[in-house]
Amino acid sequence: MAIGFQFIIITLFSLFSAPSLTFAFVPILPRFPSSAVSAELKQRSHSSQNGLYRTKFFTQILDHFNFNPQSNHTFQQRYLINDTFWGGAKNNAPIFVYTGNEGNIEWFTQNTGFMFENAPSFQALLVFIEHRFYGKSIPFGGNKTVAYANTSTLGYLSSTQALADYATLIIDLKKNLSATDSPVVVFGGSYGGMLAAWFRMKYPHVAIGALASSAPILHFMGLVSPDIFNNIITQDFRSESENCYKVIKGSWDLIDDTANKPGGMELLRKTFRICKSDDFGPGSLEGWLRAAWIYTAMTDYPTPSNFLNPLPAYPVKKMCEAIDSSVTGNNRLAKLHAAASVYYNYTGKARCFDLDDNSDPHDLGGWQWQACTEMIMPVGGSNKESIFPEYEWSYEARASWCDFFYNVQPRPHWITTEFGGHAIERVLKRSASNIIFFNGLRDPWSGGGVLKTISKTLVAIVAKKGAHHVDLRFSSKEDPQWLKDVRKLEVNIIASWISQYHQDLQSNS
Amino acid sequence: MAIGFQFIIITLFSLFSAPSLTFAFVPILPRFPSSAVSAELKQRSHSSQNGLYRTKFFTQILDHFNFNPQSNHTFQQRYLINDTFWGGAKNNAPIFVYTGNEGNIEWFTQNTGFMFENAPSFQALLVFIEHRFYGKSIPFGGNKTVAYANTSTLGYLSSTQALADYATLIIDLKKNLSATDSPVVVFGGSYGGMLAAWFRMKYPHVAIGALASSAPILHFMGLVSPDIFNNIITQDFRSESENCYKVIKGSWDLIDDTANKPGGMELLRKTFRICKSDDFGPGSLEGWLRAAWIYTAMTDYPTPSNFLNPLPAYPVKKMCEAIDSSVTGNNRLAKLHAAASVYYNYTGKARCFDLDDNSDPHDLGGWQWQACTEMIMPVGGSNKESIFPEYEWSYEARASWCDFFYNVQPRPHWITTEFGGHAIERVLKRSASNIIFFNGLRDPWSGGGVLKTISKTLVAIVAKKGAHHVDLRFSSKEDPQWLKDVRKLEVNIIASWISQYHQDLQSNS
Repeated sequence: MAIGFQFIIITLFSLFSAPSLTFAFVPILPRFPSSAVSAELKQRSHSSQNGLYRTKFFTQILDHFNFNPQSNHTFQQRYLINDTFWGGAKNNAPIFVYTGNEGNIEWFTQNTGFMFENAPSFQALLVFIEHRFYGKSIPFGGNKTVAYANTSTLGYLSSTQALADYATLIIDLKKNLSATDSPVVVFGGSYGGMLAAWFRMKYPHVAIGALASSAPILHFMGLVSPDIFNNIITQDFRSESENCYKVIKGSWDLIDDTANKPGGMELLRKTFRICKSDDFGPGSLEGWLRAAWIYTAMTDYPTPSNFLNPLPAYPVKKMCEAIDSSVTGNNRLAKLHAAASVYYNYTGKARCFDLDDNSDPHDLGGWQWQACTEMIMPVGGSNKESIFPEYEWSYEARASWCDFFYNVQPRPHWITTEFGGHAIERVLKRSASNIIFFNGLRDPWSGGGVLKTISKTLVAIVAKKGAHHVDLRFSSKEDPQWLKDVRKLEVNIIASWISQYHQDLQSNS
Repeated sequence: MAIGFQFIIITLFSLFSAPSLTFAFVPILPRFPSSAVSAELKQRSHSSQNGLYRTKFFTQILDHFNFNPQSNHTFQQRYLINDTFWGGAKNNAPIFVYTGNEGNIEWFTQNTGFMFENAPSFQALLVFIEHRFYGKSIPFGGNKTVAYANTSTLGYLSSTQALADYATLIIDLKKNLSATDSPVVVFGGSYGGMLAAWFRMKYPHVAIGALASSAPILHFMGLVSPDIFNNIITQDFRSESENCYKVIKGSWDLIDDTANKPGGMELLRKTFRICKSDDFGPGSLEGWLRAAWIYTAMTDYPTPSNFLNPLPAYPVKKMCEAIDSSVTGNNRLAKLHAAASVYYNYTGKARCFDLDDNSDPHDLGGWQWQACTEMIMPVGGSNKESIFPEYEWSYEARASWCDFFYNVQPRPHWITTEFGGHAIERVLKRSASNIIFFNGLRDPWSGGGVLKTISKTLVAIVAKKGAHHVDLRFSSKEDPQWLKDVRKLEVNIIASWISQYHQDLQSNS
């Protein structure tokens, strides 16, 4: 069985080759295996498809900001709903809404156990809204080929349109449920977390609060060092062992040197078990390894998980153990292979690896457009200390690539114009409330996150050992105490928002 | 000399004929006569054109929300600037920005003496930004014929685009002035006041506070009775004298009856001094009178003013005095003419009135598009008690007119989706700060205003005797104490925002 990179890994490669397109925001939510849904939840959600939700579609406006009748197109936006636990409109029971990311909403839904597990105690209605242009929420008649055909159709893919979609859908849904007074709390991880935070900032009349998990809303030009992402990965590995760090740091030269020797390519192919059919060079091998280190750092969860491939608990530690192991002696290539296998072949079922697999099972392709227009997130710079080769992140390289590929010019300052970011503490302290910013410091995206509590109602929760939106995942028996504490704190804060809302509601009426 | 209706009055007429287009938002800022600028101000602004400001242009993005390169057009946006009083970037001295309304920005600027008069003590930079599609800020090469040619060009005329314009321009201006830390306070009256309030809500990272004067942000469907506008006008006249109210209320039947009698039209023409050239009927005469009552109610200022025509102090009182006067005996038509003359001919220079004058000296025509798309403000309903004939406001009539005229369908719920409005106190209390909502209760637009203080930092200032954004006007020696108090309170609140901002700035750095 050959295990492919899959689309999101491939796309990340370009991170390292300049001039390149940085696919900064590859989603890193592990795939949720249906078997992991607890039996109790399955039973309680017996009315739902897949045991978790029912699928619905909403007729959504394509262009919220232009009233030209020729822009009056609509499209079918998918959302998933679970009303098993809902306390109902009469009780003004809450509605938990996931603000969908750049991919198939089912994938994110299945990885957001936190909402399912807390719905019963909150008596919450669960709604997961798919982001336009992803999954089944494709404008232009649902025809992806048409929707992605050119920049005039892709032009409708943007974060502001997506937020307006969410507002429109939520307001309509509440009206249809006669639940206008039910408080809405939004949830999201990664880009979905950014959208959740921005949604609370921009649409406080629609959502009373937001849990923004691993949302790098500060990961924009002028706000963050382009090196920070790789610095955190470097630190993740170095924290396990100095030797592990050094072996990986030295691997790039080692692979290049090996490839240049007679028979070197064959040696690399054999050592790393690259499938025979692949026409591979040192660059693609290096990319394959980088992806392993990056994704493992992001998903360095404290319990076994199943992302694209199954992973053990604390996989970075496992990788470094493989590198530090005496079994492979001084064979650094064998050590690297053993470490990469933690990510690519933890089950041991893979016979060889296919570096050319461009499949995109989670429908993430639209991010390329977003990364060429508004999502100019400087990721990929590496300094001298970096575990990756030294490399300067370049806006010009991004712009040049986007010009070449789409004939589009990025708007690098649009996100900070529209949503802010500069002096965020000073600004939000006086103008916003009811947002939880969760970040795990093992997560390379945490460098662009809000890490300091801003006010009583703008709370940063920082988990030193946490990875990318680990808090949103289904719980497991092996969860460490700190993770339980994080979730408990989040639940308590959300409960306080809802309680305050109900107080406000009563005192107003 | 014939005095014409001018565009904004004509457009309001349709308010009363169903099916009709309601030009809800005719701006009601009196024209500011340059002679009224105080000599001191003129002297201090010696570097400015017109004694008040210099004119500049900014290359603005046409479509902030669509990154399609074909939408990458720009246009020249006009703004007026006065740096005479500015304390400079080094002192982080404040920047006062007027968020332009639906018309020529010079007109609004010249009517916003409040900003000029307070700039010296605040050491504030003054900036007045023109709203896209108005005045000289015309997209598509500045060619109004092209910009207004059809719905595909007019599609870019919307409040969300305008707010994004303001954010973009302000951020760029501050950068160019090396004044990124200078606090910005936004000001606006009427639609400009709505934009100021919404700007603070949506762009708190750009503006630390807003003075939203006579901003009917609640004048939307489902939030307010469509009768409220006319109810307030009714109350204005009735508060002066019951007879005055009754004479005007009875005038509509009287005019119709008179017109139906032999020689009746000629009698009306003579009595109301309608110019001979006009082909007029009772409908146009009634519209002409309605406009007089409406505009006078809006601008029922405590001091003499000069709107489209000069007005005495308390003009509603003057109109009722004319009606109640014994000079005209029982001649109700003569009484109505005398009252209308307070608005149309206070100087006594007009020999006859031209009802067909469609001129639009303040470039307000674009509001028609806005009123057919997002600005569905229910105005014009009249109940039994109304000074105007009973009439039910009809969304369907508006939609039908817009379909006929533009082939466009209004989006009646868009504004409340985007900016909120329902349960505004409950929402803003927890999510916003630093907005002053001024309303004068004589102003018919006050029915859609925020009239209750929401929190310590969301302050409603209600002046029982005030009219449409009277607070923003240049002060005069005859200003009553309540108006002085209102302005003083506003100045103190704005000073507290700036002071808090500077404290925040210091404690952060």
